[in-house]
Amino acid sequence: MERNIYLKKASLEKAQKLLLEHFKDYELKTEKVKTKNSQNRVTAQAVYAEKSAPDFYASAMDGIAVKADQTNYASERKPVILEKGKDFTYVDTGDSIPQKFNAVIKIEEIEIISEEEIEVIKSVPVWHNIRSIGESVIKQQLILPANTEIEVFDIGAMLEAGVTEVEVYQKPKVGIIPTGSELVSPESDIKKGQLVDFNSTMLKLSAENWGSQATNYGIVKDDYDKIKKNIIKANGKNDLTIIIAGSSAGREDFTLSILQKLGEVLVHGIEIMPGKPLIIAEVNNKPVIGIPGYPLSALLDFNLFVKPLIKSMYGLEYGLPIKLKAKVKKKIPSTAGLKEFVRVNLTEIENELVAVPQKRGSASMHSLINADGVMPIKESKEGIFSGDFTDVYILKSKSKIKNNLMMIGSHDLAVDKLINQIKKNKENFELNIQSVGSMSGLVSLKRGECQLAGAHLLEPETGEYNISYINDLFKNEKMAVINLVHREQGLMVKKNNPKNLEDINSLKEKNIKFINRQRGSGTRVLLDYLLKTNNIDKTNIKGYEKEELTHMGAAVQVAEGTADAALGIRAAASAVDLDFIPIKKEKYDIILKKKSLNDPRIKRLINIIKSSPFQKVVKELKGYDLKNSGEINIIE
Amino acid sequence: MERNIYLKKASLEKAQKLLLEHFKDYELKTEKVKTKNSQNRVTAQAVYAEKSAPDFYASAMDGIAVKADQTNYASERKPVILEKGKDFTYVDTGDSIPQKFNAVIKIEEIEIISEEEIEVIKSVPVWHNIRSIGESVIKQQLILPANTEIEVFDIGAMLEAGVTEVEVYQKPKVGIIPTGSELVSPESDIKKGQLVDFNSTMLKLSAENWGSQATNYGIVKDDYDKIKKNIIKANGKNDLTIIIAGSSAGREDFTLSILQKLGEVLVHGIEIMPGKPLIIAEVNNKPVIGIPGYPLSALLDFNLFVKPLIKSMYGLEYGLPIKLKAKVKKKIPSTAGLKEFVRVNLTEIENELVAVPQKRGSASMHSLINADGVMPIKESKEGIFSGDFTDVYILKSKSKIKNNLMMIGSHDLAVDKLINQIKKNKENFELNIQSVGSMSGLVSLKRGECQLAGAHLLEPETGEYNISYINDLFKNEKMAVINLVHREQGLMVKKNNPKNLEDINSLKEKNIKFINRQRGSGTRVLLDYLLKTNNIDKTNIKGYEKEELTHMGAAVQVAEGTADAALGIRAAASAVDLDFIPIKKEKYDIILKKKSLNDPRIKRLINIIKSSPFQKVVKELKGYDLKNSGEINIIE
Repeated sequence: MERNIYLKKASLEKAQKLLLEHFKDYELKTEKVKTKNSQNRVTAQAVYAEKSAPDFYASAMDGIAVKADQTNYASERKPVILEKGKDFTYVDTGDSIPQKFNAVIKIEEIEIISEEEIEVIKSVPVWHNIRSIGESVIKQQLILPANTEIEVFDIGAMLEAGVTEVEVYQKPKVGIIPTGSELVSPESDIKKGQLVDFNSTMLKLSAENWGSQATNYGIVKDDYDKIKKNIIKANGKNDLTIIIAGSSAGREDFTLSILQKLGEVLVHGIEIMPGKPLIIAEVNNKPVIGIPGYPLSALLDFNLFVKPLIKSMYGLEYGLPIKLKAKVKKKIPSTAGLKEFVRVNLTEIENELVAVPQKRGSASMHSLINADGVMPIKESKEGIFSGDFTDVYILKSKSKIKNNLMMIGSHDLAVDKLINQIKKNKENFELNIQSVGSMSGLVSLKRGECQLAGAHLLEPETGEYNISYINDLFKNEKMAVINLVHREQGLMVKKNNPKNLEDINSLKEKNIKFINRQRGSGTRVLLDYLLKTNNIDKTNIKGYEKEELTHMGAAVQVAEGTADAALGIRAAASAVDLDFIPIKKEKYDIILKKKSLNDPRIKRLINIIKSSPFQKVVKELKGYDLKNSGEINIIE
Repeated sequence: MERNIYLKKASLEKAQKLLLEHFKDYELKTEKVKTKNSQNRVTAQAVYAEKSAPDFYASAMDGIAVKADQTNYASERKPVILEKGKDFTYVDTGDSIPQKFNAVIKIEEIEIISEEEIEVIKSVPVWHNIRSIGESVIKQQLILPANTEIEVFDIGAMLEAGVTEVEVYQKPKVGIIPTGSELVSPESDIKKGQLVDFNSTMLKLSAENWGSQATNYGIVKDDYDKIKKNIIKANGKNDLTIIIAGSSAGREDFTLSILQKLGEVLVHGIEIMPGKPLIIAEVNNKPVIGIPGYPLSALLDFNLFVKPLIKSMYGLEYGLPIKLKAKVKKKIPSTAGLKEFVRVNLTEIENELVAVPQKRGSASMHSLINADGVMPIKESKEGIFSGDFTDVYILKSKSKIKNNLMMIGSHDLAVDKLINQIKKNKENFELNIQSVGSMSGLVSLKRGECQLAGAHLLEPETGEYNISYINDLFKNEKMAVINLVHREQGLMVKKNNPKNLEDINSLKEKNIKFINRQRGSGTRVLLDYLLKTNNIDKTNIKGYEKEELTHMGAAVQVAEGTADAALGIRAAASAVDLDFIPIKKEKYDIILKKKSLNDPRIKRLINIIKSSPFQKVVKELKGYDLKNSGEINIIE
C-alpha cells in the first residue's frame, strides 16, 4: 500500500505567501444589491453621491426663520418684535427655509409674546443656523472607494447621498467536504468508536463570518472514488473547495493523490504545530485546500490560510487578531523546525500581563474555549525563557482579559459552580482555571502566574490541610486561606458495587483495577497517606501508575469500565452515577497572598462563596459541607 | 404653544449609569436552539458536557496499533517483525484501538516489508499515541457558564461534548419608530424639502449587530395621536422602544409629553455634543428611548445608550471601542458644560500617532465615514492644547490606521480617483484626505499633521505655482513637489449660459450672483489675481462673501440656481452638467518633505499617478492634462 509523505513542505510564511500570490488575480463576479441590505458586503467599484444633501436650505435648529436684517439692532434693552407669517415662521430642524427668510434663531433664544408675536433680543447674521445645499454631501462626491467593506454608517452615508443600490462583489462560494469513515453528524445516534464531525460546522460558520457563502457537502467516507467525485462537484460549483481530514499521511488519505490527478499540488505540509498536514492545490484555476482533521489544527489552518484568501479575493486586508505583550514565568521549550502555537491564559499580576501556557498537545476544543490567547513560538527559537515578554494573539476582549482572576490548582465541581455564579451575577470579572493538581497550583502562585491556588493537601502528621505546604513554599510572604468547601473523599466504584469493595484494603485484591490521580494532586497525597497508614504496598495495586488529571476523569474511567475503582469526591461519583464508599472528609481551600484580600474582585469572590445562590447549587451536588465556606485564615 | 425645555438634564456618565441601574433586573425569556445555529446567542444557564470525548481509546496518529511489550527490545540493529492482524493493525487518526493493542507507532516510523509484515526499530511505551477516554472533554465538565456569547469554537466544543441543543436568551426585541413629517423613505420618490430617513435603517442594523431582533415601524408624521399610538403598540410588543427625532425641544416634539403621560421620564437631555437631545423613559416597566434626529447624534446616542442596555440585558460587558493615544498639533477649544465627541483622522508621523480633527459641527454622515476615530473632549477641560496626547476611540483597524497616508489641502476630482485607484490596486495603504484649501494644507504639513499637501497656489509675479509659498513656509527644510495634474479653471455657469457671461468682467454685471471659494484656497487666490489684473473691485461682485469649500460645492450652487457663476475646474462643471468658460490652465501639485520620498508608500503613490489605469480615469473627467503627472521637483 502506498503512503503519502510530505513532499512539498513549506514554512508558514512561505505557504501563506504562495497561496495569496498564486490566486491574487482571482476575480469575483459582481452584483447590485439594495444599499439597505449591503452591510458587510464589499464595494466592487467606487460609489459617488447621486444627489446633494440637503438639496434645499434647511433649518439646523428648532426655532424661527427670520430675515437677518430685521434683527440687526435687537438687544435686551431694545427687543425687536416680529410678526408671525410676515416676519418669521416656526421651523423645526430639517425643515425647508421659505425663500424670503435667510437666518434661523433658536427657540430657546426667543420670547413668545402671543400666538402671533415674538420678541428677539439679539441680532443674527445671514445664513445663521441654516444648512446650505450640499452641506452634508455634494452630488458626484466620492462616498466609498472600491474594495471597501460596507459598515452601518457607510449605508447611512450612501442613503443620504441618494444611493439606493450598490455594486458589490458576489460572495465567494466555499464548498466544504468533511471526510472520514469514522465520522457521524452531531445530531445522529452516535455509537462507540464513531467520532462526531463538528469541524465542518465550525469551518462553515467561520467562512460565512469572513464574508463567503459556504456549503457543507456532508460526510464522505474514506473512499477514493467518492472523495474524487465530491471534489470535482464542489470545485465546479465553488470558488474555493475545502477537504477536511485526508491531508495527513495516513492510510486512507486519498486526497493528495486525487488532487495530484485533478490539478497541481502547490504545498503539502507546513512547519507549524498544530496544523502541519495542510494541502494547497489548484484545480481548474481554483484553490482547493486540504485541512487536517484535528479540530484545533483545522481551525488554526483555516484561520491562517482560508481567511486571508477570502479577504484577498475581496481586496481587503487580512485583519490579524489583536496581540498583546505578556510575560512568561516558566521556560517553554520549542519544537525544532516547527512554529508552534500554544494556548495560554492571561492575567494581570502586579501590573504586568502574565501568560500561563495550557497543557500542550491536547486536541481538545474545550482547552481552546478556556484559553485567552494563542502564543506563537518561532521555529528559530530555543523556546521562551522565564521572564521573557512575548506576543500573544488574544481570543477575548482586552478588558475581559485585564479583569480575569486566574486560579490554578486542584479541580473541584464547586469551582465550576463558582465560575458560573460569577457570570450569573454579571460581575465585572471572570474566574479562569487551570486544573493541574494542588501542589502545581501552589507552585504557580509562587511563580506569580495566578492570584489564587486551589488545594486540598493533607498534612499526614497533623491531619490539617494545606498550612504546612504553604509555610514551606512562601517563607517570607503573608498568605491567606479562604475555605471553599469541605467535601467527602472515598472510593468511586461501579453502580451496585459489583466487585464488593469495602475500603482502602480492597484495592489490594487481584481482580481490582485501580486508576490513580497525578502526582502533586491532593487526592494522590491522600491515597499515599491511606496506603501508608494501612500498610499497603503500592506495587500491590494494579493501575497505580495510570493517572487521571481530575476527579471527573477518574470517575469516567470507572464508569466506562477501564478501572474498577478510583479515589475521588462523592460529587464526581454521583455525576456519572457511580456508587461511593466514603473514606475521609477533607478541606478544599483557596490560597492567596494576604495583600490580594484588598483586591475588590477577591472581596466580591468571598461574598459570592458566602451567598445563598452559590451555596444552594453546591449543596445540590453530593458530599459537600459548607459550614466554613468563605472563612478567611491569615498565615503570617 | 407649549415648548419643551430640558428639565432632567444629566451628564453622560450619570445618564448611562441611571439607565443600566434602572433596568438591571430586566429579565429576558429563554429558549432552546440547536447548537449549530447558536452562534452569537448568549447562554442562559451553564452548559455541561453530555458525554466524554473520545468515549473510546482512539489513535492519536496515522500508524499501526501494537502491543507495547512486543516492541521492548526493537532497535535499528535488531528490528522486530510484526505480523498483520496478530501483532498489529493499521489505524488512522481517530480510529478506535482494538482491545488487544495498547500503543500506536507512527506510520513514518515503520518499515513495510510486505502486505502482511512490517518492521519496527524503536520501542514504544504503553498508551503511546493513544488518546484516552475523556482526553478532550469529560462528561459533566463545565463547557460554558451562563451569560456567555457563543462563538464558533464554543459551538465546536459543545458538539464535541454531545451538546446538540443549548438554552439561550431570547433576543431582546427592539421597536424603532422614526418620526417627522418631512421624512420619506430612501427608496421613495423624493421631492425638494423632504429628508430621507436613513436613521431607522442604521439603528435597526446596529441593534441587530448587538444581538437584538429589531422592527422598523415605519415613518410616523408629527402628530401627537399617531406617535402615541405607535409608542403604545411598540412598547407592548418589544423589550425596548426607540423613537427617533422628537426628543429635542422643537415645536412638533410630542414625544416628551407622550412619555410623561404613558410612564416616567428619567432623563431628558445629556451634556454631550453631538447627541444632547436624548430621552430615557420607563413605560410599563420597559425602557423607551428618544433618540435625536441628526444622524451623527442618533448613531452616537444609540452606541452610548442602547448598545450597553442590550449587552446588559444579556449580562455581557459593554465592549468599549478600542482606543489609542494620539498627539494633537493644534489647540482644540472645548464647549463649556458639554462633553464633545470630535471626529478625527489619524496618521503616523515620525513614529507618533497624530490626530487631525475634522471640521466640527457638521451633521454629515459623509464626514463620519472618512473619520478614523472619535476623540472625546471632557466637559471639565479647557479644550486640548497643541502637543497634548489624548485618547481616540478608533473606527478602523489599527493596522489600517498605521498605514494611512494623510493629505490635506485643496480638493480635486483627480484626488478622488487616486484614492479609488489605491484601493483597486489592493495596496497596503490608503490615502485619507481633508479638503480645506491649498494654504491650510501647507500649514497642516508644516505643523506635522499630514505627509502630503495638495495645492495650486498661483504666484502672481511669476505665473508659477506653489514654489514661493513653500519657500516662505518651509525655510530650513528640503521639500519636494510631485505634479498630480494640470487642469482648466474657468467660470462655471448654467447650461446654455442663459445670462450670457463672457469672461471675468461679466461678474461685475448687476444681475449676476457669484459664489466664491474660501480664503486660502488656490481658486480664491486665482480669483483675486484675476480681479486685480482686470481692475475689478470685489465690492462690485454680488456674492463675493459667500464661500464654498470645494469645486463641487460651488458647482452645485450654480446648478441649484443659488448662484449664476463660480470660478472652478472644468471637471466639476461637467460633473453637474454646467457650461464652462475656460480662463486659465493651472498646476495642481502634491507637496511633501523631501525625505518622505523614501517612504515606500510615496514611491507606490508616484507609480500609481504615472500608471495608465489612473491616467485613463482622470482623462475621462473633463479638462485635465497629464503631461507632467508624477514628475518630481526638489526645492532645497
